Amino acid sequence: MSPERRAPAKSYAAILDAVEDRLRSGQLRIGDRLPSERALAEEFGISRNSVREAIRILDALGLVRSGVGSGPSAGAIVISEPSAALGWGLRMHLASSFLPVVDIVAVRRLLEADAAAAAARRDVASDPEAGQTLARAAEILDALDDPDLPDETFHELDAQFHLTITSLGGNEVTTTILGSLRQATVGYVQEGVRLLADWPQVRLRLQEQHRQILAAVAGSDPQAAADAVTAHVEWFYRRAFEHLEG
Amino acid sequence: MSPERRAPAKSYAAILDAVEDRLRSGQLRIGDRLPSERALAEEFGISRNSVREAIRILDALGLVRSGVGSGPSAGAIVISEPSAALGWGLRMHLASSFLPVVDIVAVRRLLEADAAAAAARRDVASDPEAGQTLARAAEILDALDDPDLPDETFHELDAQFHLTITSLGGNEVTTTILGSLRQATVGYVQEGVRLLADWPQVRLRLQEQHRQILAAVAGSDPQAAADAVTAHVEWFYRRAFEHLEG
Repeated sequence: MSPERRAPAKSYAAILDAVEDRLRSGQLRIGDRLPSERALAEEFGISRNSVREAIRILDALGLVRSGVGSGPSAGAIVISEPSAALGWGLRMHLASSFLPVVDIVAVRRLLEADAAAAAARRDVASDPEAGQTLARAAEILDALDDPDLPDETFHELDAQFHLTITSLGGNEVTTTILGSLRQATVGYVQEGVRLLADWPQVRLRLQEQHRQILAAVAGSDPQAAADAVTAHVEWFYRRAFEHLEG
Repeated sequence: MSPERRAPAKSYAAILDAVEDRLRSGQLRIGDRLPSERALAEEFGISRNSVREAIRILDALGLVRSGVGSGPSAGAIVISEPSAALGWGLRMHLASSFLPVVDIVAVRRLLEADAAAAAARRDVASDPEAGQTLARAAEILDALDDPDLPDETFHELDAQFHLTITSLGGNEVTTTILGSLRQATVGYVQEGVRLLADWPQVRLRLQEQHRQILAAVAGSDPQAAADAVTAHVEWFYRRAFEHLEG
């Protein structure tokens, strides 16, 4: 156990350590079931309450899905949903005002511009999976053109467009972090948008910018893709968050 | 409550939601104590076991410190340690092999190069706090020159040097993410280094690269600072991780 490891000095820590070791060694894989609470309590010599605490923490981290459609004797299923879990953690820290929104936007701009450039470098002609992802991004933009789309659906599809282009870039850590940042800021974005008197015009402008991003990626122009994302993020931030600034 | 929110459909979820709302509204601040377990159980009409589960999750996320030097009736203290908590979560996902090391290194290179460039733009002459941070980075490098330093201390100070330069860049989200990535990969780095026959030479080379980074930051040259970080991260990754590749 390395000294840098965050070691909760609690009785459930043994289970968290064991899960990490078993994931690393491959003994435990996505889709496997953990042993039942009773079996874990016996194996580690701790109470079932402590076992349950460990499972809840793994659940909150997006590492297991517990108690879904199974009897109490069935173990939790190992999953991997880093975006959901880390996004929730980031949002809590954001709520505590420790992480400023302006810093989040700067990180988003940098990572997403890099991902869009990487997406533009993908050879979609000879890579069917990449081609399908790009086609999905285009479909999302077509759906976003509908002027009758409720705002909530617009925000959802807008987020999906960005994450689709990002995932086309191919870096899973970038996709995870950007998904987390999106989850962390979604409340602030909706709040900012509600205060915009000219939201219908803003919506049209956002769509023009989305089209520019898609054209640069589809046209295999990494620099244009990065520039279009940077301009889009900066423009929207200035419009949606100006009320937060002095 | 927004639809994107990760809502654990469990009885403890009400407490997590309430803590987030109170953090956001400012009713709850860093250093405050949460109500006692008993009081929370009464307020939310749930069992003390469920309250304890909620507290454990907040603890695992680095949002409260529970049960340290206080009687059982004292509430957990609100803290904010996003790096520790998110690093631990990322490391678990890394162990499950969902997040490839090569992707982590690419994100680290991008964010840390940007942070070093920002650090080089700080006006250390007229900003005493920035000047102190830069001086601390120089002191760490002096300590790293000691050839008798145990490897473990070398890795620790090496990490401190990088995080000191990053924090001088001033973006708290970047600092949090890089701290998390560092925690997530520390085990892999130490493993990689153990397999290097020429580790003493590698150590000397790393120090030369650290000196180049510091010189570029101290010399207010953002491009040189970014380039020095990029070269350093790429060189070390090729040396320490080549055994992981086919």
